Amino acid sequence: MITPDQLLQTLQEEIEKNSYGDQPKELYEPIRYLMSLGGKRFRPLMTLMAASLYTDDWQKALKPAQAVEVFHNFTLMHDDIMDCAPLRRGKPTVHEKWNANTAILSGDVMLIRAYDLLMEVESDRLKKALMRFNTTAAEVCEGQQFDMNFETRWDVTEAEYINMIRLKTSVLLGFALELGGIIGGANGEATSLLYEAGVSMGIGFQLKDDLLDVYGDPKKFGKQVGGDIIANKKTFLLIEAVGRAKGSVKRDLTHWLSVKEFDKSEKVKAVREIYDTLGIRTFTEQKISEYFTKGFDCLERVAADPARKAPLMGFVHQLVEREA
Amino acid sequence: MITPDQLLQTLQEEIEKNSYGDQPKELYEPIRYLMSLGGKRFRPLMTLMAASLYTDDWQKALKPAQAVEVFHNFTLMHDDIMDCAPLRRGKPTVHEKWNANTAILSGDVMLIRAYDLLMEVESDRLKKALMRFNTTAAEVCEGQQFDMNFETRWDVTEAEYINMIRLKTSVLLGFALELGGIIGGANGEATSLLYEAGVSMGIGFQLKDDLLDVYGDPKKFGKQVGGDIIANKKTFLLIEAVGRAKGSVKRDLTHWLSVKEFDKSEKVKAVREIYDTLGIRTFTEQKISEYFTKGFDCLERVAADPARKAPLMGFVHQLVEREA
Repeated sequence: MITPDQLLQTLQEEIEKNSYGDQPKELYEPIRYLMSLGGKRFRPLMTLMAASLYTDDWQKALKPAQAVEVFHNFTLMHDDIMDCAPLRRGKPTVHEKWNANTAILSGDVMLIRAYDLLMEVESDRLKKALMRFNTTAAEVCEGQQFDMNFETRWDVTEAEYINMIRLKTSVLLGFALELGGIIGGANGEATSLLYEAGVSMGIGFQLKDDLLDVYGDPKKFGKQVGGDIIANKKTFLLIEAVGRAKGSVKRDLTHWLSVKEFDKSEKVKAVREIYDTLGIRTFTEQKISEYFTKGFDCLERVAADPARKAPLMGFVHQLVEREA
Repeated sequence: MITPDQLLQTLQEEIEKNSYGDQPKELYEPIRYLMSLGGKRFRPLMTLMAASLYTDDWQKALKPAQAVEVFHNFTLMHDDIMDCAPLRRGKPTVHEKWNANTAILSGDVMLIRAYDLLMEVESDRLKKALMRFNTTAAEVCEGQQFDMNFETRWDVTEAEYINMIRLKTSVLLGFALELGGIIGGANGEATSLLYEAGVSMGIGFQLKDDLLDVYGDPKKFGKQVGGDIIANKKTFLLIEAVGRAKGSVKRDLTHWLSVKEFDKSEKVKAVREIYDTLGIRTFTEQKISEYFTKGFDCLERVAADPARKAPLMGFVHQLVEREA
């Protein structure tokens, strides 16, 4: 049986082959640029592995799997404009390297090309795949809008935050798995479980991102530890802390959230201590564990040959244990 | 048989009913706002009329027809950001009324909603409709990019300009007619002819827009006559004039294209005289006539009941003769 590493290699080669279009070059070069910056490609890999649960012909999932990756990169191209982000994977963002107009229009074409790639799903399964993709794609936009709305609010609840990350990041992971199931020929119960597994895992991954920013090992964590704290980013931890803090702890937290000039490592240390005082670390770890457990439970219940499930389970375990 | 006016009324009612989504409201209100600003709705009307060539059940084309209108308005929302346009149909553009981020993200959802509406095409015709829509949608983006590229070029040829307007505005009109044919059950030859008719007509309409800006009757023309001349907009007429002008006429034209402070009506009058000197008006009228003739010829050749074709032909004649 083909290994996840072999699937990933084939996927990378396919992604490199895709030109997305020819003229005008101003429209298609930014797409090739962004797609060439890499990333772990774990979304399309999930699609291939989910298809492999039910068929040896995983090749027929190659183009639809790329649709998931192209869509994901489309959201990055447009989100980076909205967030005024200068860098993406350590390189200039498209709106920085070219300009915002180019990033808007190239992004638009990327979304259309994602649909093009989805058209390779076999005819009898195409409509279901497209209907589910449409719902997912709109939800991802809804999540981005909620995220932007939250920037100016200090009364965001835990439930609102979880819903936002579910929409912005998790439903696409759910769809990536579900799409593989649809292409492989899984029944409705199995595709639903694959979707639920991906959504729960996705929420767990995002909460773990939030946690690692504060408590990650600087040697293993790819980014600067404490970056979210320095930027007052509304993570799960901060939202919990704002909800729980009282008295002098509340005054302390409010001070660090409002002070304009500060020593970065001092702020990171102080806010981390507030989180510790409020039991935020343990609570977040519990939440992450709950979502991962629910995700694995759904995967266990997916009706498929155990030998075929082993590589997918192993890959997801790897993702769950990563520390960067 | 149902008249174009009755079709239009039903279409308007359907468009008003569509909410596009609920939460977050920041995402969906701009869509309802832009869709409520009106417009002649002649693209979706074309879809309904083309479907009516082959079936009495034109209602089944209602949602796919709206996909064409929603897609068109999506391009307006994003183009208005790129063009820094303050007004659309006399009202503030979405990026002015809200902000650019909202216009980007609401536009993205509009494109997804257009696909949602297309999913209502019957299953056995869905794939063809989607393949053709994907091609068309990408071409419209290509046209917008060419248009932006042309802003900084003075060596744009007639062929390049025609290709740009074909992509930016005409292929969608072609697709609107073709989609109606696909839904109605027309054969491949008929859908190709409907498409070609729409594309040729669309090029004719755009050239006529360019002509009316210079030679339109101020009482009938909705906008300020001469607006393109004042803004140095690269229309068919200006591109022809730049290509033909020699000697003193060239010096005159160069002067009016480079002068920063000028009396508007004086510039409009002077450039119009240059166009007259160079025979641009007659040449443009000939071109328009050629494209309309080609369009009508294609429509004539579409195999369908002449009684069913009469309303479509009448409607297209009306569009051809409009002076605003």
